[in-house]
Amino acid sequence: MTASTDPVKITTKEDGNAFFDKFDTFLFDCDGVLWLGNYLLPNTIEFLNKLESLGKKVFFVTNNSTKSRETYKKKFASFGVDVKIEQIFTSGYASAIYVRDFLKLQPGKDKIWVLGEAGIGEELATMGFEHLGGTDPRLNESFNPNESPFLKDGLDPNVRAVIAGLDHEINYHRLAITLQYLREGENKVKFIGTNIDSTFPQKDHILPGAGSVIASVACSSGRTPIYCGKPNMNMLNSIVSAAKLDKSRVCMVGDRLNTDIRFGHEGKLGGTLLVLSGIETEERALAITEEYPRPNYYVGKLGDIYQLTK
Amino acid sequence: MTASTDPVKITTKEDGNAFFDKFDTFLFDCDGVLWLGNYLLPNTIEFLNKLESLGKKVFFVTNNSTKSRETYKKKFASFGVDVKIEQIFTSGYASAIYVRDFLKLQPGKDKIWVLGEAGIGEELATMGFEHLGGTDPRLNESFNPNESPFLKDGLDPNVRAVIAGLDHEINYHRLAITLQYLREGENKVKFIGTNIDSTFPQKDHILPGAGSVIASVACSSGRTPIYCGKPNMNMLNSIVSAAKLDKSRVCMVGDRLNTDIRFGHEGKLGGTLLVLSGIETEERALAITEEYPRPNYYVGKLGDIYQLTK
Repeated sequence: MTASTDPVKITTKEDGNAFFDKFDTFLFDCDGVLWLGNYLLPNTIEFLNKLESLGKKVFFVTNNSTKSRETYKKKFASFGVDVKIEQIFTSGYASAIYVRDFLKLQPGKDKIWVLGEAGIGEELATMGFEHLGGTDPRLNESFNPNESPFLKDGLDPNVRAVIAGLDHEINYHRLAITLQYLREGENKVKFIGTNIDSTFPQKDHILPGAGSVIASVACSSGRTPIYCGKPNMNMLNSIVSAAKLDKSRVCMVGDRLNTDIRFGHEGKLGGTLLVLSGIETEERALAITEEYPRPNYYVGKLGDIYQLTK
Repeated sequence: MTASTDPVKITTKEDGNAFFDKFDTFLFDCDGVLWLGNYLLPNTIEFLNKLESLGKKVFFVTNNSTKSRETYKKKFASFGVDVKIEQIFTSGYASAIYVRDFLKLQPGKDKIWVLGEAGIGEELATMGFEHLGGTDPRLNESFNPNESPFLKDGLDPNVRAVIAGLDHEINYHRLAITLQYLREGENKVKFIGTNIDSTFPQKDHILPGAGSVIASVACSSGRTPIYCGKPNMNMLNSIVSAAKLDKSRVCMVGDRLNTDIRFGHEGKLGGTLLVLSGIETEERALAITEEYPRPNYYVGKLGDIYQLTK
């Protein structure tokens, strides 16, 4: 199956069962696919239970860096879904892996400046990395260069990387200190972005995403980050290798063409399923464009497949 | 004189006097040229007094939209410099003029959403425009889509433009509501950026500038703003026309090649002077590149010319 085939809309019981038969493993994006913020989409749990009953492997691959894998596990539990931490991959976790395994920064010695929420710092801490910034409440104070505890005595010379991602507490203080570290230059301080998503779809509203936070410090610093989330292949390689997957039998399920579907397409997975419960429209799913690949399958929402096949 | 001539560094009394003789009118950028934040650069007042004693006309043309012209007048007064409001042009004022004269929005009917500080809203108010957002303290509250007074009852249908600029109170609430208005689309809500400056040089530190705030909402919305500050020609045309200037006898003085010097160059003014007291270096001033024009003159800081010619 190639991306040049017309996308198949799953509309019948037969479509749904054929879809299940084609794959052994499903990688799910979360926001926009399983839920919108704290609103669980209808029949999501039934759909996941159906996969379990069919003996399928399931992983959750999210570009949301605001929560750690541990916190995601709790979020699943709050919806009554029991998920192991090894089934969860976040862009914050992928960024921490990148810093440790690719940049070879050393826990206990090298530090990381974080523009982002708890999900990044918690993954770094799990690996033994000290981080600065992030959710430190002193960053909630108004910025004054002469008074900021992050600047008045100079920058921390052990900071060797900036990881930037979605931050609902974005403010001038955080942006200003992040800029100071980025101005140290590529040789001294590397620049990592968790993910490119420009928006963050929630129930009823499309809100600013990680990409729009990173865009601000990329602009002020004149630097371009390395992105670690989907569609970057680092994340896919970790999953495939950890779970010993046959890529031809893996389906990526997501709500974004330029991250999720590209991730599955460029990763040469067996197939991709686009759900329209997040950011995309049927028109865009069917469009032939250089901007993003087309999905192999699409459907309004995951629960529709459950309804068709129950 | 063309930009292909090597830039002349003003180093002697003769250089300084020849520079004065060549022009009748001087347009000054402010931040990085006259002062850095609240720090007045040495001999700035003496330099301005010298121009006055020589009978030169002087205008102040700043991309800083955080203050209104009225507030700038007070800032000059606090440094002991008496400046008329007609001598001051800000990017916030230029944006308000653009909304009124080019977009033809109607005071009393059409409203403007502001992502930025008091200097934009005050200029809009002077023209009779109602604006939303800006420094409204309710935007300092944490963002919740169901509780935000700017969103819970829907968007204001009379908002016809977004003006975005530097905002030291940038937060997720402001970014999220700005995005909602921008998502209304180009036909309904126009998108104006005050100025492109990615950084905001202050004493001892380079801080995030308007461009980096605008970059965030440009990214989330997928839209590109119209910029009204330097080097946009709207601002220059207003000044030249209001003061009936002979452009060949006008010199633009600034600290940025890609805004100030480009402004003078593309505006076909008689000449440009780059000062190195802000963002640029001598190396960049002398470089031949497609990125920005070279200045006709350059000097460490304005006060150096005063020292040479006193």
